[in-house]
Amino acid sequence: MKEQVIAEIHVIPLGTATTSLSRYIAACINTVKQAQDISYQITAMGTIIQGPLERVLELAQKMHEVPFAMGVKRVVTSINIDDRRDKSITIDSKVKAVSQADYGS
Amino acid sequence: MKEQVIAEIHVIPLGTATTSLSRYIAACINTVKQAQDISYQITAMGTIIQGPLERVLELAQKMHEVPFAMGVKRVVTSINIDDRRDKSITIDSKVKAVSQADYGS
Amino acid sequence: MKEQVIAEIHVIPLGTATTSLSRYIAACINTVKQAQDISYQITAMGTIIQGPLERVLELAQKMHEVPFAMGVKRVVTSINIDDRRDKSITIDSKVKAVSQADYGS
Amino acid sequence: MKEQVIAEIHVIPLGTATTSLSRYIAACINTVKQAQDISYQITAMGTIIQGPLERVLELAQKMHEVPFAMGVKRVVTSINIDDRRDKSITIDSKVKAVSQADYGS
Repeated sequence: MKEQVIAEIHVIPLGTATTSLSRYIAACINTVKQAQDISYQITAMGTIIQGPLERVLELAQKMHEVPFAMGVKRVVTSINIDDRRDKSITIDSKVKAVSQADYGS
Repeated sequence: MKEQVIAEIHVIPLGTATTSLSRYIAACINTVKQAQDISYQITAMGTIIQGPLERVLELAQKMHEVPFAMGVKRVVTSINIDDRRDKSITIDSKVKAVSQADYGS
Repeated sequence: MKEQVIAEIHVIPLGTATTSLSRYIAACINTVKQAQDISYQITAMGTIIQGPLERVLELAQKMHEVPFAMGVKRVVTSINIDDRRDKSITIDSKVKAVSQADYGS
Repeated sequence: MKEQVIAEIHVIPLGTATTSLSRYIAACINTVKQAQDISYQITAMGTIIQGPLERVLELAQKMHEVPFAMGVKRVVTSINIDDRRDKSITIDSKVKAVSQADYGS
């Protein structure tokens, strides 16, 4: 299996008149669902995706384009990548690692 | 109920010799568990917390101190706050909003 | 001198109707200028501030409140803190360190 | 001229034994200097770059690879993109906009 990274992507459309962004975020998530070689988890603060680095950046770019296609004129997108090459990591294994770690008495 | 914000906190200890950070992150999460007036969710990329803005910032500061107390000499912490005052939001309601939004055919 | 951290703060008002945010950002920067014990630098992507950790978090909270006071209903703020306790760092010294480092031929 | 975005890139090598990262960051900046169609500014908290979206993402990926090539086993990279399509923006024009905005009384 090709090396996987985990990334978190936040897409923020600006100048939308209304404070609700869920219409735009849902459309971004739709793009994630159609992506190949990608696992994902939706959180309250962004979308966590897992896949090969190149696929992840391609998907981030596609998500970033979504609000523009819906008429938005300015989008701020942040992409946070965690890339570990000494050990394979997954969205699940990372959560388990911190939940099970012995953080002493 | 006092106004709630949702925030995501990432604490990254630097210069730790090993690539595994789970020991430090688990200790940070332990601090979250002991906090009052705070709901939380652990994700693969950080900890999402919900509570009054002041409590959230206090907790972020406490989490940031954890690796120093464990001997680390440099810590990079990021705090992302989503604060909506026209409508009450929760960690769960935000995920539901984007999952249910009608993003057209 | 009390220990200093360097932080970068981005304040993003949502639902503002117009794509230009400079009016809000300028008001945030005004708050920075009035802060005590704080050095700062304005960049194209945020405001970099330097000061004791507590002052930095207090100032971040004040900056976050600015767009609300101007009528905005939702604000997303990110705070990135770099806190190094084995060596004193400043906004200038950090830029010099990477500009002068020998990164080989 | 092709549409330009402004982005800020932070590359953080983990498990480096020492707290100083300047050797790695300088090597990343070297990569930026060699990039075509890219303007940049080094700040205390990251590198701000300006260029067409695709070039920016390509460069971010190259910068992310730099610490791995130097022996690091885990890298956390964040990419923040500000993409405004109703008006051309530059690193300089953004700083000027907030400095000149009338936030008066």
